[in-house]
Amino acid sequence: MSAAYDLVIRGGTVVTATDSVKADVAIEGETVVAVGRGLGQGRREIDAAGKLVLPGGIDAHCHVEQMTAGGFRNADTFETATRSAAFGGTTTIIPFAAQHVGMKLPEVVSEYRALAAKGAVIDYALHMIIADPTAETLATDIPAMVEEGIGSIKLFMTYDRLKVDDEKFLDVLLAARRSGAMVCVHAENHGMLSWMARKLTEAGHVAPKFHAMSHPRLAETEAFTRLAAMSELVDQPVMIFHVSTAEGAEVIRAARGRGVKLFAETCPQYLVLKAEDVDRPGLEGAKLMFSPPSRSASDQDALWRALDLGDLQLVSSDHAPSRFDETGKLRAGPNPPFKQIPNGMPGLETRMPLMFDLMVNRRGMGLSRFVELTATNPAKIYNLHPRKGTIAAGADADIAIWDPEREVTLSDEKMHDLAGYTPYAGRVIRGWPETVLVRGTPVIDGGSLAVAPGFGRFLPRKGGEAARPTGRLVREMDPARNFGANIL
Amino acid sequence: MSAAYDLVIRGGTVVTATDSVKADVAIEGETVVAVGRGLGQGRREIDAAGKLVLPGGIDAHCHVEQMTAGGFRNADTFETATRSAAFGGTTTIIPFAAQHVGMKLPEVVSEYRALAAKGAVIDYALHMIIADPTAETLATDIPAMVEEGIGSIKLFMTYDRLKVDDEKFLDVLLAARRSGAMVCVHAENHGMLSWMARKLTEAGHVAPKFHAMSHPRLAETEAFTRLAAMSELVDQPVMIFHVSTAEGAEVIRAARGRGVKLFAETCPQYLVLKAEDVDRPGLEGAKLMFSPPSRSASDQDALWRALDLGDLQLVSSDHAPSRFDETGKLRAGPNPPFKQIPNGMPGLETRMPLMFDLMVNRRGMGLSRFVELTATNPAKIYNLHPRKGTIAAGADADIAIWDPEREVTLSDEKMHDLAGYTPYAGRVIRGWPETVLVRGTPVIDGGSLAVAPGFGRFLPRKGGEAARPTGRLVREMDPARNFGANIL
Amino acid sequence: MSAAYDLVIRGGTVVTATDSVKADVAIEGETVVAVGRGLGQGRREIDAAGKLVLPGGIDAHCHVEQMTAGGFRNADTFETATRSAAFGGTTTIIPFAAQHVGMKLPEVVSEYRALAAKGAVIDYALHMIIADPTAETLATDIPAMVEEGIGSIKLFMTYDRLKVDDEKFLDVLLAARRSGAMVCVHAENHGMLSWMARKLTEAGHVAPKFHAMSHPRLAETEAFTRLAAMSELVDQPVMIFHVSTAEGAEVIRAARGRGVKLFAETCPQYLVLKAEDVDRPGLEGAKLMFSPPSRSASDQDALWRALDLGDLQLVSSDHAPSRFDETGKLRAGPNPPFKQIPNGMPGLETRMPLMFDLMVNRRGMGLSRFVELTATNPAKIYNLHPRKGTIAAGADADIAIWDPEREVTLSDEKMHDLAGYTPYAGRVIRGWPETVLVRGTPVIDGGSLAVAPGFGRFLPRKGGEAARPTGRLVREMDPARNFGANIL
Amino acid sequence: MSAAYDLVIRGGTVVTATDSVKADVAIEGETVVAVGRGLGQGRREIDAAGKLVLPGGIDAHCHVEQMTAGGFRNADTFETATRSAAFGGTTTIIPFAAQHVGMKLPEVVSEYRALAAKGAVIDYALHMIIADPTAETLATDIPAMVEEGIGSIKLFMTYDRLKVDDEKFLDVLLAARRSGAMVCVHAENHGMLSWMARKLTEAGHVAPKFHAMSHPRLAETEAFTRLAAMSELVDQPVMIFHVSTAEGAEVIRAARGRGVKLFAETCPQYLVLKAEDVDRPGLEGAKLMFSPPSRSASDQDALWRALDLGDLQLVSSDHAPSRFDETGKLRAGPNPPFKQIPNGMPGLETRMPLMFDLMVNRRGMGLSRFVELTATNPAKIYNLHPRKGTIAAGADADIAIWDPEREVTLSDEKMHDLAGYTPYAGRVIRGWPETVLVRGTPVIDGGSLAVAPGFGRFLPRKGGEAARPTGRLVREMDPARNFGANIL
Repeated sequence: MSAAYDLVIRGGTVVTATDSVKADVAIEGETVVAVGRGLGQGRREIDAAGKLVLPGGIDAHCHVEQMTAGGFRNADTFETATRSAAFGGTTTIIPFAAQHVGMKLPEVVSEYRALAAKGAVIDYALHMIIADPTAETLATDIPAMVEEGIGSIKLFMTYDRLKVDDEKFLDVLLAARRSGAMVCVHAENHGMLSWMARKLTEAGHVAPKFHAMSHPRLAETEAFTRLAAMSELVDQPVMIFHVSTAEGAEVIRAARGRGVKLFAETCPQYLVLKAEDVDRPGLEGAKLMFSPPSRSASDQDALWRALDLGDLQLVSSDHAPSRFDETGKLRAGPNPPFKQIPNGMPGLETRMPLMFDLMVNRRGMGLSRFVELTATNPAKIYNLHPRKGTIAAGADADIAIWDPEREVTLSDEKMHDLAGYTPYAGRVIRGWPETVLVRGTPVIDGGSLAVAPGFGRFLPRKGGEAARPTGRLVREMDPARNFGANIL
Repeated sequence: MSAAYDLVIRGGTVVTATDSVKADVAIEGETVVAVGRGLGQGRREIDAAGKLVLPGGIDAHCHVEQMTAGGFRNADTFETATRSAAFGGTTTIIPFAAQHVGMKLPEVVSEYRALAAKGAVIDYALHMIIADPTAETLATDIPAMVEEGIGSIKLFMTYDRLKVDDEKFLDVLLAARRSGAMVCVHAENHGMLSWMARKLTEAGHVAPKFHAMSHPRLAETEAFTRLAAMSELVDQPVMIFHVSTAEGAEVIRAARGRGVKLFAETCPQYLVLKAEDVDRPGLEGAKLMFSPPSRSASDQDALWRALDLGDLQLVSSDHAPSRFDETGKLRAGPNPPFKQIPNGMPGLETRMPLMFDLMVNRRGMGLSRFVELTATNPAKIYNLHPRKGTIAAGADADIAIWDPEREVTLSDEKMHDLAGYTPYAGRVIRGWPETVLVRGTPVIDGGSLAVAPGFGRFLPRKGGEAARPTGRLVREMDPARNFGANIL
Repeated sequence: MSAAYDLVIRGGTVVTATDSVKADVAIEGETVVAVGRGLGQGRREIDAAGKLVLPGGIDAHCHVEQMTAGGFRNADTFETATRSAAFGGTTTIIPFAAQHVGMKLPEVVSEYRALAAKGAVIDYALHMIIADPTAETLATDIPAMVEEGIGSIKLFMTYDRLKVDDEKFLDVLLAARRSGAMVCVHAENHGMLSWMARKLTEAGHVAPKFHAMSHPRLAETEAFTRLAAMSELVDQPVMIFHVSTAEGAEVIRAARGRGVKLFAETCPQYLVLKAEDVDRPGLEGAKLMFSPPSRSASDQDALWRALDLGDLQLVSSDHAPSRFDETGKLRAGPNPPFKQIPNGMPGLETRMPLMFDLMVNRRGMGLSRFVELTATNPAKIYNLHPRKGTIAAGADADIAIWDPEREVTLSDEKMHDLAGYTPYAGRVIRGWPETVLVRGTPVIDGGSLAVAPGFGRFLPRKGGEAARPTGRLVREMDPARNFGANIL
Repeated sequence: MSAAYDLVIRGGTVVTATDSVKADVAIEGETVVAVGRGLGQGRREIDAAGKLVLPGGIDAHCHVEQMTAGGFRNADTFETATRSAAFGGTTTIIPFAAQHVGMKLPEVVSEYRALAAKGAVIDYALHMIIADPTAETLATDIPAMVEEGIGSIKLFMTYDRLKVDDEKFLDVLLAARRSGAMVCVHAENHGMLSWMARKLTEAGHVAPKFHAMSHPRLAETEAFTRLAAMSELVDQPVMIFHVSTAEGAEVIRAARGRGVKLFAETCPQYLVLKAEDVDRPGLEGAKLMFSPPSRSASDQDALWRALDLGDLQLVSSDHAPSRFDETGKLRAGPNPPFKQIPNGMPGLETRMPLMFDLMVNRRGMGLSRFVELTATNPAKIYNLHPRKGTIAAGADADIAIWDPEREVTLSDEKMHDLAGYTPYAGRVIRGWPETVLVRGTPVIDGGSLAVAPGFGRFLPRKGGEAARPTGRLVREMDPARNFGANIL
């Protein structure tokens, strides 16, 4: 062995999704090479006595510099978004490249990769939003994109200019199946949302608090059920984004129970906030407008149980920042009805501390489950593991060193993104990531950002194991039952 | 009492949905006035000794002279369709008036009422197909139509020129709720059907037998689930037409179990035929092409159980005749791919005898259940009861006198419609309606039609009890939970 | 026709489970012979203008002169019980003959038939409680008893001296299957009840209000599930008595859905009373102690829905009267702990008026459903139909003539049984049976009892259609799968 | 770092439930101290190039020297059983100490601990079978036993002399809850088993193949449902042993879904064997007689899915060896009916290789899942983790080094237990544990046993996290709803 390691994190409690052990972590170059007691000297050493040495978080759902249908971009750049993520203990993000109608995928890929390469301070992969599955997109661009390392696709079942109808949806699922890509979905019933918003508006109910009512719970369960059916028909795995209701979680459990390869996430806002929180004076509620909306205490209970049971496998942020001013939430004027207020909230920076406090301190779920739900599972499901999502020989040294006792009161001022506010201002958290390494390099150190924009790297990946079909064809697709006509 | 009744049916076994008794039936004018033993003389008498005296059948789902999206009409006129129905023991039908895009409801009503008035030999009500729910349709025409006595609407979730998207669907449900109309639905997922047909066609699988594969079972369960969600959101009762799968029946049972006001029917073809029956030489299979298609023996078992349990409440024919020639099934040429073959089969004449044989002779369900599923329940659900659907004082004397022992071998030649074939040719049935009265007048007598076209009358009706909302609002619509914003 | 009928009930609204018609009812001797308009003269006539002419109620679950395990009898004799029933519009009861350990069935039958023959003023059938299924009971006595006309057996899953363990339970189910008898069950988990009562008693919680807590909801769902499994194993239909919880109703719905031949009833007390009603000063709560106990408002909602859906098919009283004195509730002394207070309440007289008021006036279920749930369904399930449970030619003239507008305030004094109290005192009811005929003879007339004890007759019956196995054997019993070893 | 480790396993692929990495494992004394690349020298080294370095298996369900109700002991001693386990790659077992009626727990503990201390060659913990929960057992002995480190109890719902009735069962669950012990259960409905066996015997169906029929599938689902209800009532976690049916797995999934803290295992025999395998000539089938019996291919599919979904968390052997001679299977004579043939099969030695071959080679579940289901999960659920069940700094060096390519044909002769046969003789396995370490000491080395009897140590443990109640009380136990009477 080498006379000395490049870096040793000494004497902390090292946690993986399985184990939590007192041990040193030795790093050579960008890579963990050993975890053990009494490891040899490091040329650099970090004293982690009394600290937790955790895999850096992986945030698999966040919007960064994403061009919306309306033609404006989120408040954050890759630089500010990844900076913010890093301060919160996250070392990898998977934001979106977004195809809109008429755009070609290779150009979309180029654009977003350029933006990211310029600004990111932590590593990143990309999901591709597909809004226009033309024949060329399906036949040529999706396979090429996956080949290049963008191994996941996002589809919308709602939003006027993003939604893909059921028939085209099946086309994309089949293209994904053939390329081995994962498919992620924003699943709400579009017609119900439009109808509710229209009826509310006609009745003069336009304050932000009515946004929640315009997203009926049934719109979620309906869409999940339809999505499960489409996934089953094509035998293509699907990740359901931001589950918000108890019934939605039940639909997922039922579908998984009969063998449909569904994955699902929820976000801190569905575990922490409630629908009535949006009922604030004036337009303040707009800060808490996002889709689907937060629901009730009993939904929170159901989502926690779904996480406990493995029906949901990860917690992402759905970071989608708009400033609470005329560049963002109030773009449509000083007194917009809810339909003209951009959805979305910041969340990259707060996700890990909020979840640490809730999972570890308040719910007694243990450190390993926290690591699993916020780092290891995202890595495995999105095929970044074993390089990311764990602390083990051969893995990238993406590590957050947490002080489990440090108390922090969240505030707008402490945030490092450009949203200008956090929905959790005033909340007291215990446990905070103090030092954050990406590939062995401290990115956050002593409370400051320690690397330059562009330090982050693109992580090419194919769909991986989770994206593999189950092989269980529905009856319609079973050639033995259908005159030899398997069309998948 | 009168010295003599106009007509007495003497000495038969009179059956209602509850009772089966040896009794005479006395009729004055068009109306039953007494059921009892030893009733007084009739000016006319029918000897029913050894016979069954049953309410005439009500066929609540049949297509007659209906203009299709493609611009051609079914093989049958009102005259031939109702003649055929009468020979099969049916005394009331509820066919469709069909709005296509651009048409106004009052004109559609006029057209169909004129066609029916001219030809029908038995009584009839009408459902209105709505394909274009404009603001005027919703606000003015639906209320007017219901007021006129067309108390039910049919919507399609599939077929290119008929389908109504989810948002408009909710509009129609709300209009129906406000007018007190029932809503009937052809519920299959349009995208799945289109996608499957396209994929099959691309792969060269175009024989009639592939029609069944182009209607995946999941397209039914998905659509039923979505429909139940929409029904629940608006708290509007819905009738699901032609349930074909075990899973579909399960979706209905589950939704009813949680309080959604769903009703459902199946048809003889789903209880008698199987998917593999379509696998015939050449284009012969086209005769058995209808949508949704027949499925498997285990589906038949499930549908029987659903009838037993009350999850399905009636059996209709979905009579939709196309001749097996260039005017019908082969319109698109001598060798059409399945997508260009019109769907549908004749069934008005065979429904009652087939069901009698199956329910009474083979499954031991009893005469009362046969009457309930084929006459009383349709009458009650579509608000024709107590005038139709039973034999009781005050009801119209719509009566079929059956010989329970008569065996008939079904054949193309014996049918009285214009389809030119029956899918059940060769099948031997025991039990046959020999004499059929409508409002006290023999319509079928001695094996012949005994009334002239136009004898049948229009039956105006509003939605009735079954069409009444449950009053159980989903959470989104509950004003107590939603800042006072119930928008129904 | 005859020159004149013996009796004509003139001009009322005659209701069956299917129809409700303005008509006269003609009776010859003990039998209805005609229902119609303008029927001929009766030697006697009853003017029923403005009144409802309904089938007399059938109470399929009541305890009369029943010897308990503890050796004492209920407060009522056959005379007082049937008198009370008749005043409430009930014309047939099915109480119990009760075998205790060591008793032989033929002697039990003789004893109860003698008691009933002496006292009954309305007709009656009998269920046989079997607590000691010896080899002789199984092989000889059950078949003989069914042959004599006692076509139903009751088993207890709880109560120390009545309960039958699972193995013997299966023996009785098989004997019932072979004899064609129905099996009724008091289904609660005995161990849970005993354990809860012991734990409550050890903790000093002995007031009547803790009785409800000693019957956990889970004791009902557990026992229903076990019972369904035993029913399925032996393919023997079973009637579940007195369903009290939402979850219990769900278990029944699920089991019926998969084909298990379960029937079920609930009682007015589960639709009207709540657990907290037992929380009364001193021992007053003992008046409302019965098993299972009443539950909550949401359970009531669930039970109504289960009745609507057909998951429950009838409403019985579970009449089991104990006086609130030292002969009954307080037998164990002036201050007994709940475990020493006899369970049970009177209910024969109030069942029909309570249900009329709730079903017809308050819930809009309609007259036919009221008749079905309180008369026709009990008659059909227990094989008393077509003789009982309807008004039709050939049926016994068991008829209650109701004034739908009469308001009655229930009170202890108005009751005609020997319990000395009614749990519904103070409740105002609209709709009351004023004249009650059994086999054409007025039993209640002008507010008085009009027949002598012994007027009532024994109704012999076999199990009938409802008691027929489904024929669907579980896998274990399927010879094709099991080396030819079907052992049923 | 230390100049040299005691032992280094060099260059293998080290697998945990989360990660699979190329790394060395360094051991000091009995303990793993580091996992990493290029670790320093060991005083001893094992070359693991091309090999898999896995945590030793933990077999949480096996019968060793266990006194049966009939008074005889299993074929194996602790020496032979643990030897056999070690050859199969298992390094920890949790067999039973067995209380029978009349025995006191402290004496039972002493006896089994003495037997184990004398013979075991690998480490062991103990479950305590409780058949006689006297007041003393509940109040004194269970707490004392848990204090001593026997943190789990086993209860039987069947077998004449072992079964505990529901009321006593609840007593034990409450005692376990108070002591923090896990409760494991053999869950089958006793009455169904007894009844079936009696009926089969009466009908002369006594060959071994009828044993399976005497354990109806419904006996499993019924008992699981009842067990879940009891677990829920007392809010006490429960482990369900040897799940054999698809329906049983569904019951578990449903109960877990509503929050009941159920755990469950299956065994290789339910994943590999089928009911028809018992249909062998003469008494050969007796070799495959165990309870519950193996079922069908579709059950195997369901059990695999339940493992995939986490509804089942581990795979144990249920090793219960009887020789196929007059000391075992044929104790009752040369031609015993199935009821007189002892149940049980050997399995300690074959469990790990069978599961490796199935999970890793045939089903593509991956090495980490194999480790999780056979070692990590048992360790965590039974509170042996982090000492056992993983390879990490600080854990006992219990390690099996597997050759993933070695093919072995199983045969009776290759087994090291005393059963004299393996049910899997002739089956070809790929992947075999070649070297097995317990606490750093090679126990199996070069194909031979390398330690003396008594090397194994007792592992004291309390119930741990998995045994902790959920804190979700059912309504009956909720003081807020029940007049302050929470009795847990």
